[in-house]
Amino acid sequence: MRTIIIGGVAAGMSAATRLRRLDEQREIVVFERGSYVSFANCGLPYYVGGVIEDRSALLLQTPASLAARFALEVHVQHEVVAIDSAAKTVTVRDLASGAERVEEFDDLVLAMGATVTDGIPGEGVPVISLRSVEDVDAITEVLAGATAPRAVVAGGGFIGVEAVENLVTRGAHVTLVQRGAQVLSPLDPEMASPVHRALTDAGVDFRARTTIERVDAGRVTLSDGTEVAADLVVDARGVRPDVRIAAAAGVGLGPTGGIAVDDRHRTDVPGIWAAGDAVEKTDHLDGQATLVTMAGLANRHGRAVADDIARVATIPATPALGTSIVGVLGVTVGLVGWSERRLVAAGHAHRVVHTHPFSHATYYPGAEQMAMKLLVDPETDLLLGAQLVGRAGVDKRLDVLAVAMAAGLTASALSQLELAYAPQYGSAKDAINMAGYVAENLATGTDRTIQWHEVDAARVAGAVVVDVRTNGEHEAGAIPGSILLPLDDLRERHGELPDAPLIVHCKVGQRGHTASRILQQLGHDVRNLDGGWLTWSDGVDADLREKG
Amino acid sequence: MRTIIIGGVAAGMSAATRLRRLDEQREIVVFERGSYVSFANCGLPYYVGGVIEDRSALLLQTPASLAARFALEVHVQHEVVAIDSAAKTVTVRDLASGAERVEEFDDLVLAMGATVTDGIPGEGVPVISLRSVEDVDAITEVLAGATAPRAVVAGGGFIGVEAVENLVTRGAHVTLVQRGAQVLSPLDPEMASPVHRALTDAGVDFRARTTIERVDAGRVTLSDGTEVAADLVVDARGVRPDVRIAAAAGVGLGPTGGIAVDDRHRTDVPGIWAAGDAVEKTDHLDGQATLVTMAGLANRHGRAVADDIARVATIPATPALGTSIVGVLGVTVGLVGWSERRLVAAGHAHRVVHTHPFSHATYYPGAEQMAMKLLVDPETDLLLGAQLVGRAGVDKRLDVLAVAMAAGLTASALSQLELAYAPQYGSAKDAINMAGYVAENLATGTDRTIQWHEVDAARVAGAVVVDVRTNGEHEAGAIPGSILLPLDDLRERHGELPDAPLIVHCKVGQRGHTASRILQQLGHDVRNLDGGWLTWSDGVDADLREKG
Repeated sequence: MRTIIIGGVAAGMSAATRLRRLDEQREIVVFERGSYVSFANCGLPYYVGGVIEDRSALLLQTPASLAARFALEVHVQHEVVAIDSAAKTVTVRDLASGAERVEEFDDLVLAMGATVTDGIPGEGVPVISLRSVEDVDAITEVLAGATAPRAVVAGGGFIGVEAVENLVTRGAHVTLVQRGAQVLSPLDPEMASPVHRALTDAGVDFRARTTIERVDAGRVTLSDGTEVAADLVVDARGVRPDVRIAAAAGVGLGPTGGIAVDDRHRTDVPGIWAAGDAVEKTDHLDGQATLVTMAGLANRHGRAVADDIARVATIPATPALGTSIVGVLGVTVGLVGWSERRLVAAGHAHRVVHTHPFSHATYYPGAEQMAMKLLVDPETDLLLGAQLVGRAGVDKRLDVLAVAMAAGLTASALSQLELAYAPQYGSAKDAINMAGYVAENLATGTDRTIQWHEVDAARVAGAVVVDVRTNGEHEAGAIPGSILLPLDDLRERHGELPDAPLIVHCKVGQRGHTASRILQQLGHDVRNLDGGWLTWSDGVDADLREKG
Repeated sequence: MRTIIIGGVAAGMSAATRLRRLDEQREIVVFERGSYVSFANCGLPYYVGGVIEDRSALLLQTPASLAARFALEVHVQHEVVAIDSAAKTVTVRDLASGAERVEEFDDLVLAMGATVTDGIPGEGVPVISLRSVEDVDAITEVLAGATAPRAVVAGGGFIGVEAVENLVTRGAHVTLVQRGAQVLSPLDPEMASPVHRALTDAGVDFRARTTIERVDAGRVTLSDGTEVAADLVVDARGVRPDVRIAAAAGVGLGPTGGIAVDDRHRTDVPGIWAAGDAVEKTDHLDGQATLVTMAGLANRHGRAVADDIARVATIPATPALGTSIVGVLGVTVGLVGWSERRLVAAGHAHRVVHTHPFSHATYYPGAEQMAMKLLVDPETDLLLGAQLVGRAGVDKRLDVLAVAMAAGLTASALSQLELAYAPQYGSAKDAINMAGYVAENLATGTDRTIQWHEVDAARVAGAVVVDVRTNGEHEAGAIPGSILLPLDDLRERHGELPDAPLIVHCKVGQRGHTASRILQQLGHDVRNLDGGWLTWSDGVDADLREKG
């Protein structure tokens, strides 16, 4: 038996090595069009930044090491240009010599990954992606040749913000050009505000609602007509599945434009499997086809392809949650499931919970505050999504929420999770537990909340905002028109409040919850501002961004 | 309605504040025999070490602040000395004046916590626990008065090792006196070895299989007859539920000696609830009564008591997993569920998986290796327990495993979890995913393993150990009598291997797995040494400890 694998990075190499472990006899041939296989894709930005100092650290395997350990036949700089699924052959071009040859297969694995979108017109500034070892070699060379390098990053997605961080680390002046109003579009607008503060603090020139029109000698022209001097453009405008040879060979694509596979990673052509960024996944929430270009899924699905080819017991692919994490200039952003924006667009009912927990007990040094947002199904109380922005402890809570979602736990059940507590690691009621309590209070009607973006309309309708923080907090910044009535005075002074629907708020929502419970029991019509002053402020910042 | 709560720390204060939020009208009275309420119990050792510098950081609330915010009537230095459950009264002693009075209740909450075991005979060295603010004040005073303080810690449990760490931080010479052969008895012996190395590296004088007989002027006499000069003894020998007044009042105790409650935290006396360290919990695995003295459970159950008293919708208490974490001299130890030792003692069938994953991608700086152990039910593939010992990233994996256990995921399903990956946070195949793959390979028979403690017997029965690491690794340390045959030479040279059952091993088990797959397909009878050289070495160290 002879298996050919097209693509030698995450999905392809996971398939190859697992297949060898399962089947010592099979001939396994890998064709990779780049010069390297099994390199550290996700480490490339950090080599640009000098965080990863040793270039060889990026190169996890070589054709020689893969031959020695796994008896793989690996050809780099070999591009498969055509597939004949009836004849069970591929046409391979040796990129060094230009020669083409035909190779036979019994089983074929498509792991071509994704490809960049259209190029940027013009010349005079190098335009380089951040997708291969060759790319980072080229970027590093440009940076080394400039004394005070000026870089323009096109696209503020995951790779884009990682590029920004690392270019800043290398001392470059960075302009970030983004088509939308905010970076990291899967983040809801108020959750993106801390990221934008980090960009501003680092001196990044952020150009919203803008694209690159063209480059010319030493300068970049933007869609708003402005020009930016630049030694380098890093093209991080996103990617699409590389389906060219697959489509040409009659392999079926799905509604997203990615290769369609079943839950065993089989395409609609017998004998052809596919995994990785070229392939669409099934969404955890709605079961629909979706594109998630994450290394974890690529590795897992590549390995599962090998299981199915070797016909060992396999379990159907788990739907994709889209768990993702990115570091931006000291801020960590975590995402899983759907955003509020996406739920609204899909008309999916949802409840929102914002909290601002600390990474560990505040009485122990070094605790850092994060912003956490849960999206909850109001009918089932199931988690629909979560977003986290902060520093220490974000990755842990994201993983906990990802497992909870995968396991089908309700939001209220988060309160019951028995998580690790010693003061340097967490809190007796962990961030996750507290979010669960908030969700449970909403589910049981113990608390009623109002979202930051609903406050203006409520006030127009006659509601009054009551700030239950301290005098000092109120003076440092308050919601315009709000009445100050500190929580500890509420029982005594609530008679001063107007006979109107009340919106209470504190800094994060916790004192607001106590205030809301007191006022509710005293007969007031009251809602607690979800996430408090911090979320409201981040929302106001988001509104300002949206309005330009 | 009048609710009396006995005990004003974790469970008691969670009950009091939640009850107030649910019921504004109720009279809520808290009696605390100590001088402080709601203090940072778990922070006490770190105040001793000076990590928490500000004593006021330990004092989260005061009677005055609790009166202002929650309209609670809190009496410190007031000990409830008797309960009359028929008359619905308690007798309270004002510890300052010695005066006693009788107070009436409608509902009573027992949250007395735990109490230390018997004292240590003799005098001439202060013997101080580590359970209250008064304790740490006393310890700090002794340390401040000695130029090169010598401390003896009695008991190597969680509090004991935290005491050791913090006394070392304060510059004390520390002797640790432990009844058993190892510290942290819930850890299996091979998993305790890294902790013992940390103790040795820090210069701690560890006295195994030893207890304190008595103290005399400036010295401590141990059960083996040796004497240790000491300025201070920290008594961390463990605790038992403080059930004295509860038992005297006819409140039923369970088989563990703790107060028995139902899944609504009700005792067998109507109108009396109980939560916290005085109360027994229900074990997640076998549903039996168990003692778990963790702050997280105390807080959660205290809050649930309030829900039940206020008759809001409550969900039955979730059984206890015993999730716990502790830092010892830079090493983090995490535990959840049952240990191998406990499973063996209970005669519970189990499968063991040892791995040594890194905290994040090794190509990114700062990745730290940990030891991870899973206990798996061979019938159901469900997780029975997990142990982790390492540095960065241990707490995250522990929480993920705790959620997986709570949600009833199988060990194999760990491979399918979609966890956060960017190179500074994790790996494309995260530590958890990899452990899941190992478990799956065992469940499907793709790999067969042997445990470190089974190797000697297997060799006596004729098995041969084959080291598939490199020459250099083998020379730096090898299993006695093992044959070196590096993995990359295996296909070529396997004919050199004797015709005997083979045990292959590498450093951690991963190359061993590949070797085992190759040899299995070549017709050999082969098992892979679970956890590899690292686990085997830690096991040998454990054997040496056990033998003294």
